[in-house]
Amino acid sequence: MPLSPVRIVMVHTTHPGNIGGAARAMKNMGLSDLALVAPKEFPSGDAIARAAGANDILDRARVCDTLEEAIADCEQVIGASARLRSISWPQLDPRECAERVARSPVKTAILFGREHSGLTNDELERCHFLLHIPCDPEFSSLNVAAAIQVVAYELYQATLAGSPAKETVIGDTDVPATGEQMESFYAHLESTLREIGYLHATKHEMSILRRLRRIYNRAQPEQKELHLLRGILTAVQRKVGGAG
Amino acid sequence: MPLSPVRIVMVHTTHPGNIGGAARAMKNMGLSDLALVAPKEFPSGDAIARAAGANDILDRARVCDTLEEAIADCEQVIGASARLRSISWPQLDPRECAERVARSPVKTAILFGREHSGLTNDELERCHFLLHIPCDPEFSSLNVAAAIQVVAYELYQATLAGSPAKETVIGDTDVPATGEQMESFYAHLESTLREIGYLHATKHEMSILRRLRRIYNRAQPEQKELHLLRGILTAVQRKVGGAG
Repeated sequence: MPLSPVRIVMVHTTHPGNIGGAARAMKNMGLSDLALVAPKEFPSGDAIARAAGANDILDRARVCDTLEEAIADCEQVIGASARLRSISWPQLDPRECAERVARSPVKTAILFGREHSGLTNDELERCHFLLHIPCDPEFSSLNVAAAIQVVAYELYQATLAGSPAKETVIGDTDVPATGEQMESFYAHLESTLREIGYLHATKHEMSILRRLRRIYNRAQPEQKELHLLRGILTAVQRKVGGAG
Repeated sequence: MPLSPVRIVMVHTTHPGNIGGAARAMKNMGLSDLALVAPKEFPSGDAIARAAGANDILDRARVCDTLEEAIADCEQVIGASARLRSISWPQLDPRECAERVARSPVKTAILFGREHSGLTNDELERCHFLLHIPCDPEFSSLNVAAAIQVVAYELYQATLAGSPAKETVIGDTDVPATGEQMESFYAHLESTLREIGYLHATKHEMSILRRLRRIYNRAQPEQKELHLLRGILTAVQRKVGGAG
């Protein structure tokens, strides 16, 4: 996977646990560039605990005195904002943000503000775009590490969407059954139901068989699964035949 | 906004802070139904602190002794799993999961396992689908509250995308089977397989039962269909018992 051109910038973070949580979220999603603007406490044992193994992200995090320093080499700056501000600024949601980054991979900083008050207007004015995570307007303040998790997740999704082919490994263990195989299964099922007297007992034979088809068609069995089901039918036939 | 049919189920959570973080994430995204299966510590000050105002979610959280209790009234069960298991189970990513829930709003439980080991195989076998959050395979363990945040975010996005164009009209004739009903079906199936000598004949009992669960979970039978399948099992038992 190519090195992501995205830097996560946490501005004036109060709780070091959130820095650790952010580092973990970043590493989960293949991001590695973290900058901390005047964090209240860093380095910190709380950060390491919450990072849960993403220590390399914390070790390499750059601690800056000012936002300017943290974004000096970035060509694009996006600021996360919980509020829909009166000042109208171009807005992105996380998916649009990720698509933008994937489409034009210039060095991009995404800023996340203070736990209680977010980014200041001054800081937001440095941004080319505001990033808003859609959420319940009645309870709209996301935890900062959780917000970074959502954004990192969308960035990773956008990377995947651009990469060659989704790897659904279909081994020889799970080849879907063919129509022909399904038909012999249904024939086998029907004859077994006759042998146990189930179909004799009712006038609604066709309806029952149709409903059974519906169930098994929906399950879309693999060949090995069909083999298993037919093994059971054979066991029933043997038991019934042997006893009869 | 309509009441979401989604219950978040946290199974054997160790750190109460994660329960609080999950409650906050849920409330941000308009979810309210939280069940806790045998949490290590709850209620807890750490949970309240991390909930950051989502106290109502914590207050109404249902604490259960067993997973069965937590999902008894759910028609669809989805289990979050970090690992891509060798046994292939139908998988969804968070977006597919959200689309599925939005499209067919049956009562759905989404299960999140232990911090260090996730859900057990037994627990996963209760699930109709596995939910996997795409992430860096080199560092694939998300914090549980962060995982809930991502899934809740996608659920909210799917709600925003518009209320479902319901493609399947669910009349009273086709009510999906509940988790409890599926469990009694599996118990009935197992005892029938024993009576016909099918399970005795093999050492791979557990693997066979698991594979059968997989087939029938995928089919997501309606209650009437389950009734039909159980009728067949009863007919087999009668025939075998009567002849023996």
